[in-house]
Amino acid sequence: MPEAAFVQATIGDSEFDRDTAVTLREPGVYDIDLSAGWTIIGAVNGGYLLAVLGRALADALPHDDPFTVSAHYLTASRPGPAVVRTNIVRTGRTLSTGQASLFQYDEAGNEVERIRVLASYGDLDSLPDDVRTTAKPPAIPPVEQCFGPQDAPAPVPGSSAIADRLLLKLDPSTLGWVLGAPSGKGEMRAWFGLADGRDADPISLLLAVDALPPTAFELGISGWVPTVELTVHVRCRPAPGPLRVSIATRNLAGGFLEEDAEVWDSADRLVAQSRQLARVRLSN
Amino acid sequence: MPEAAFVQATIGDSEFDRDTAVTLREPGVYDIDLSAGWTIIGAVNGGYLLAVLGRALADALPHDDPFTVSAHYLTASRPGPAVVRTNIVRTGRTLSTGQASLFQYDEAGNEVERIRVLASYGDLDSLPDDVRTTAKPPAIPPVEQCFGPQDAPAPVPGSSAIADRLLLKLDPSTLGWVLGAPSGKGEMRAWFGLADGRDADPISLLLAVDALPPTAFELGISGWVPTVELTVHVRCRPAPGPLRVSIATRNLAGGFLEEDAEVWDSADRLVAQSRQLARVRLSN
Repeated sequence: MPEAAFVQATIGDSEFDRDTAVTLREPGVYDIDLSAGWTIIGAVNGGYLLAVLGRALADALPHDDPFTVSAHYLTASRPGPAVVRTNIVRTGRTLSTGQASLFQYDEAGNEVERIRVLASYGDLDSLPDDVRTTAKPPAIPPVEQCFGPQDAPAPVPGSSAIADRLLLKLDPSTLGWVLGAPSGKGEMRAWFGLADGRDADPISLLLAVDALPPTAFELGISGWVPTVELTVHVRCRPAPGPLRVSIATRNLAGGFLEEDAEVWDSADRLVAQSRQLARVRLSN
Repeated sequence: MPEAAFVQATIGDSEFDRDTAVTLREPGVYDIDLSAGWTIIGAVNGGYLLAVLGRALADALPHDDPFTVSAHYLTASRPGPAVVRTNIVRTGRTLSTGQASLFQYDEAGNEVERIRVLASYGDLDSLPDDVRTTAKPPAIPPVEQCFGPQDAPAPVPGSSAIADRLLLKLDPSTLGWVLGAPSGKGEMRAWFGLADGRDADPISLLLAVDALPPTAFELGISGWVPTVELTVHVRCRPAPGPLRVSIATRNLAGGFLEEDAEVWDSADRLVAQSRQLARVRLSN
């Protein structure tokens, strides 16, 4: 018998699209059931949440593509019902700015705010082709020389539901932490895709910037590294094919660190940049 | 006769403090007259505006120090009356999050929104001393080998009121644009202080990250480079003495660029990091 054919999912018809789909309740207000499929241990991944907010704003604003999204993470989200409330701040010819908050419900049914974002949207396809970049794609070995959660002989501690939904292949030179020998350099690099083969689009880039293991692991710090703030700039519509994500931390001080992420597409274009401020527990 | 003594201004009693002071109108609402002293050509400097918003939020929130401030710039501000409207998003033990908008008035007296920010505040003095940073201070020649607007034999084109309020001494290796020979590298570095000698504090760092000439000038692009979004992380209370500011652009594409700024204090601590997304006119 032939093997079961792998049917590649498409943008608009994939697990990621279904799990980030928001339902209009009334103008500017959207319901969603946050999927347990995008959790790390018990917590819903911050990049998945950003994509949910990004979908709601794409519907609410006259422009479709996130250009810059700034998110402040307030309380930890859990799988289950949530509501996104959006406001239009300003609409312009080339850019529109909106605000959105994601809420969940406490035992009494009161809304508890999880994340608040400000975002400016535009039309990536309207931008001129001019590229004058000095940035270079990250040096990552070929994907067959990289390792993902699926390559571990036993389940990796802390691996989680999200691992089944990603095609994440980490550069072995940033995997010392897995063997108990972190490099001491705050770097993490990986090939990145969705497990069902769906290609990247501007909304899935919001996931890509926050889907790798924390750089803190390579600095010898284990445990939870909660995001305080994350801003992403989408700079180009990604070409089909796998992405390369490179994350670097240069300043760990006073119990906080920054994570700077770059996302490169298969055409060697720098398609997204992000920076987040996160807290670390230095006692670990 | 002796020279007139230079009386160094102090934090809390300086031109910068007076020009960023906000007056409580009602709970959460603050009036200010935006000073013409911080303009570049006709436009009010974005860092000065961020400091004004930062002062209002420091008053409105239970914590005093900006840790992360994300600003979306909507319309250009002009000198004159403005109002800052703040909301508390969440208060916590170590961090509080707030939102603020700066409005000015149109001819009919209607409020027009200029900038909206989300910000998380804390107490910098409560942070642990631990520093594990791989970042290095920028290599800038000694201040006496650097050049500011005051060193020009004739007024520098585009120099402006703000130049009189800053002690800005630019690294000559990032000054090619002044001589019509931009380096092609998107870098700008300078010694930075306030002209009246007031030392830096977390609020003035919000000015420091957006006070140098645009890196675009060194990329051979002249003209206006309006900020779309700017996020700053304040990482440490700055020590007394001059600051060093280093700004880099790696990706100019599609009519947008990012500017990444680092601010270092006299004790060689990385005290602030920022990134902004700005628009450029590629036809220049």
